[in-house]
Amino acid sequence: MSEYTAPLRDIEFLLNHVADSRFFNQQPAFIDYDPSLVSAVLAEAGKFASQVLAPLNHSGDIEGCRFHAGVVRTPQGWCEAYRQFCDNGWLSLALPEDNGGQGLPRFIAGAVHEMWLSANMSFVMFQTLTQGAVEILHAFASDDLKKLYLDKLVSGQWATCMSLTEPSAGSDLGSIRTLATKLTSELDDGRYLLKGQKIFISYGEHDLAENIAHLVLARTPDAPIGAKGLSLFVVSKYQLDESGNLAALNDLQCVSIEHKTGLHGSPTCSINYGEERGAIGHLIGAEHCGLQYMFVLMNEARLSTGQQGVAIAEAGFQRALRYATERVQGRDLISGAANVTIAQHPDVKRMLMSMHSQVFALRALSFQIAARLDLAQQGGEHSAAERRFIALMTPVFKAFATESGNHMAGTAVQVFGGMGVIEETGIAQLMRDVRVTTIYEGSTGIQANDLMLRKVVADNGFAINELIADIEADYTIFSVSSATVIETACNRAMLDSLKDSVCYLLSATKTEQLCAADSFLQLVGFSCTSWMMMRAYVAAINANSTDTAHLGNIKALCQFYFAHHTPKIQSLYHTVVNAQSGIGDYQLSC
Amino acid sequence: MSEYTAPLRDIEFLLNHVADSRFFNQQPAFIDYDPSLVSAVLAEAGKFASQVLAPLNHSGDIEGCRFHAGVVRTPQGWCEAYRQFCDNGWLSLALPEDNGGQGLPRFIAGAVHEMWLSANMSFVMFQTLTQGAVEILHAFASDDLKKLYLDKLVSGQWATCMSLTEPSAGSDLGSIRTLATKLTSELDDGRYLLKGQKIFISYGEHDLAENIAHLVLARTPDAPIGAKGLSLFVVSKYQLDESGNLAALNDLQCVSIEHKTGLHGSPTCSINYGEERGAIGHLIGAEHCGLQYMFVLMNEARLSTGQQGVAIAEAGFQRALRYATERVQGRDLISGAANVTIAQHPDVKRMLMSMHSQVFALRALSFQIAARLDLAQQGGEHSAAERRFIALMTPVFKAFATESGNHMAGTAVQVFGGMGVIEETGIAQLMRDVRVTTIYEGSTGIQANDLMLRKVVADNGFAINELIADIEADYTIFSVSSATVIETACNRAMLDSLKDSVCYLLSATKTEQLCAADSFLQLVGFSCTSWMMMRAYVAAINANSTDTAHLGNIKALCQFYFAHHTPKIQSLYHTVVNAQSGIGDYQLSC
Repeated sequence: MSEYTAPLRDIEFLLNHVADSRFFNQQPAFIDYDPSLVSAVLAEAGKFASQVLAPLNHSGDIEGCRFHAGVVRTPQGWCEAYRQFCDNGWLSLALPEDNGGQGLPRFIAGAVHEMWLSANMSFVMFQTLTQGAVEILHAFASDDLKKLYLDKLVSGQWATCMSLTEPSAGSDLGSIRTLATKLTSELDDGRYLLKGQKIFISYGEHDLAENIAHLVLARTPDAPIGAKGLSLFVVSKYQLDESGNLAALNDLQCVSIEHKTGLHGSPTCSINYGEERGAIGHLIGAEHCGLQYMFVLMNEARLSTGQQGVAIAEAGFQRALRYATERVQGRDLISGAANVTIAQHPDVKRMLMSMHSQVFALRALSFQIAARLDLAQQGGEHSAAERRFIALMTPVFKAFATESGNHMAGTAVQVFGGMGVIEETGIAQLMRDVRVTTIYEGSTGIQANDLMLRKVVADNGFAINELIADIEADYTIFSVSSATVIETACNRAMLDSLKDSVCYLLSATKTEQLCAADSFLQLVGFSCTSWMMMRAYVAAINANSTDTAHLGNIKALCQFYFAHHTPKIQSLYHTVVNAQSGIGDYQLSC
Repeated sequence: MSEYTAPLRDIEFLLNHVADSRFFNQQPAFIDYDPSLVSAVLAEAGKFASQVLAPLNHSGDIEGCRFHAGVVRTPQGWCEAYRQFCDNGWLSLALPEDNGGQGLPRFIAGAVHEMWLSANMSFVMFQTLTQGAVEILHAFASDDLKKLYLDKLVSGQWATCMSLTEPSAGSDLGSIRTLATKLTSELDDGRYLLKGQKIFISYGEHDLAENIAHLVLARTPDAPIGAKGLSLFVVSKYQLDESGNLAALNDLQCVSIEHKTGLHGSPTCSINYGEERGAIGHLIGAEHCGLQYMFVLMNEARLSTGQQGVAIAEAGFQRALRYATERVQGRDLISGAANVTIAQHPDVKRMLMSMHSQVFALRALSFQIAARLDLAQQGGEHSAAERRFIALMTPVFKAFATESGNHMAGTAVQVFGGMGVIEETGIAQLMRDVRVTTIYEGSTGIQANDLMLRKVVADNGFAINELIADIEADYTIFSVSSATVIETACNRAMLDSLKDSVCYLLSATKTEQLCAADSFLQLVGFSCTSWMMMRAYVAAINANSTDTAHLGNIKALCQFYFAHHTPKIQSLYHTVVNAQSGIGDYQLSC
């Protein structure tokens, strides 16, 4: 039996009944995507995830990537899996049709992406890089660059990586020092020579594809200081002739890979550009707009990272459920029956439901964001509002889902008891793999500040009040039915805490806002997931399905969530409005 | 600079002004332990922890224990450190004076023990084993056995281990199958032959001491089934002649050590007893009383495990603080100053204070328990109440401090950002090391059930209401002063949630009690730590110390705790009274 089975019923319920994707077969652009087609794609993806990717997950962790003399070898079986991943069309699923992609909507691609991450997160990290790089090149690059790169990236013949971080420029990209000097000779027109050292480059070097297009943030000699002086370059691992054929190696070298706590199968590279004559790169778009372009990829990566939290939690839940329903230990404290499976112990069942309900709620939110991404791309009358929702939700989902993912990976280990910390069991790998997700692509603190300052305070609460109005509109409908009146009232009271928090924060000092940022982000996270769970609860009550057992479980998960997770909003509100207590008076040097 | 510096000022403040140890120099038995003597012991221990133990922590993690042909080698430097640890009297600190120990009170020994755990938890795990084994032998063994074992265990010439778990007997020790058959020949009178397989035996085999006394739970052939049929044996690695000299190897063998996520320096052994002719063991006390005796060691181990949570969090806090005050990154969002240390960013300062305040609060609780252990041992008029407090607090402190320790280790990694998941940084080791603490010595779920059924429901709330009355008595005093009236009122409101929870639970169904057990344990944990923080707050306000900076920091930490941690009681209450929601209806096989 595979380590992972795609949770198709949960996924389809959320796509068809909870997230805004439920309206998609009413949209002209997606009229073809009826539920049965979506089902077929999901089922095929689920098979690929369990049969091809999942079996390489634990072996990849044990073997890890190997580095020697600038060359990185991925674990055994990965090159073949990459080839199949590309050949079967999974890489190009949501990429532009003009370049050989299939242009599927995000709500489908997102659901599929979660499966890859559950099955083998280390492996599939290249996909988000390609997705983001293609978007950037498509939107901002010259036609020549598009012609050179896009088709080959979409097919997977070439891979890509995102070269941002430097030893002294992590969260603060404005400190980037890598230098890009324009070549002025007639022959080299439009080219730059890059020199600098980059670290923490995921898939910066590997053996999966014949070439790697590095997207590198660098500074031109006369650029303004800080983030506004950064430009974006594409630097090919191999130099290219005019037809795009690979020529000599470019002047860049992977000098080491990191020895990390998790994600052993994903090479994290230190790369030196231009140690000799300078690495030849091409400017993307205009000079000094690099960070703005890169944010297209970064926002993509942030949403994908949030999904990593969900996906690892799903993987952990599945394994914990299997173990708990097989492992016999102890007596049923209610019935007195001897030798029961541990899943029958109420506290173990509580842990399983805690994971399942959180995964379910977070996945609903992820699908909701994906559906809005699709709507925003349609450019309809509400597309500005859709974009505000996505901008608001990006930091929330990234940080909240990864923090939750870390907690849930811990819970999964806990269900295994002593076996959980034995590496051969495989469950501790999930805990190690998910650890970095609250850090990379902008740490939780960075997301919290982004939410607070750029997404809430900067527009004086416009976007968040729009969100609150959306939630309230749902609750007003739900409160009419006697079947959901109690749950709605409870969630409405919690929503008041969100409203009160926003009110407080908009008139708070900047220090108060920053001290409250993390708690506020969590408060918004629980509010949005509770909203999704209210939708799921109502949908499960009203659904016409013969699968009553599944609907019963969904209702149970929602009720559990309202009792075990939603109430955290209460105490978070208390923290938000008192967040600065003691912080000003505390001396770090004491 | 050492990786660890004992937090002497925090420790002494809590011992002298917060925990009940503050009354100790008024007690006849401890009249000699004035603060300056205590200071001297703590300072020496602090030096040993930083200079001898801490330097071996990371190298021990990297090197790990090696196993070959039944022999376990600890990492380089450990044998020498063990010798020094014993020679300098640290092993025997709180062991009986009759056997060469120093008989120091628990409140001092406990504070010192935390330092060892912060400096090198993998290494020092043998100490709790010796402490508990000596207590068991002292209380229950025959004079002959005492004479054979006690002096050598106290001096560290011999070590000990606790052989409980079997592959199908983990949390449910009643399922233990290891068989002990009494030898009936005249020559072998009083001896048993043991046969069975034990797993997860910490320090079951190693090269630190010349002999290891295994305390083994086993079943005599005619024993009743379940936990009431277990007897406790001491099985010496080497057979002993009548004078206690080492003879031939006993029939027991370490067959493997585990490949664990953390604690690489602590060998976790699988041991086969009696594969050939049977391992010779001696019964301790009476047959069928084994589990009752072993609980002396297990309660000891549970309190020590709780301290592991505190100690790892302290270690993580210290390293995170150092990194955050050195690492320069980004702009101060309030003042606009460029290139500030990350500790100046409010959210990073929040993380540091979150760790520091939790460590401080949990340490206070650990000292409070230690002080009550000392008082209980005095056998005064309140000793029954002291024992009830300790019995009530053991599961709470074990589970709450280790769960918190896991969260804080995660926070420490978070402060390091990307460097946190690079193994060479050393911080991820803490996260890996602390992971098992919520599992071994009774998982969090086991502790929660113990608290709920045996410590709260079984005595119809007597002990917990005694605790609530103790807390209320303090709050009544604190509410008088205008300097603390607001904080007291806030904490009193939270205490009401504890009272209401107890009320609800005492009349709830057993299923409701078990579903609520985990949340209730956390609620009690936050209530008790908040109580300790109220004491600390009042003490810091009233203290006559010239170290006003330190007092200012303590006040700030308390205020922070009341804003960021105490409010969790509110939402936990909400969960406790609704804990069963959905659990009954959720189908595991769906």
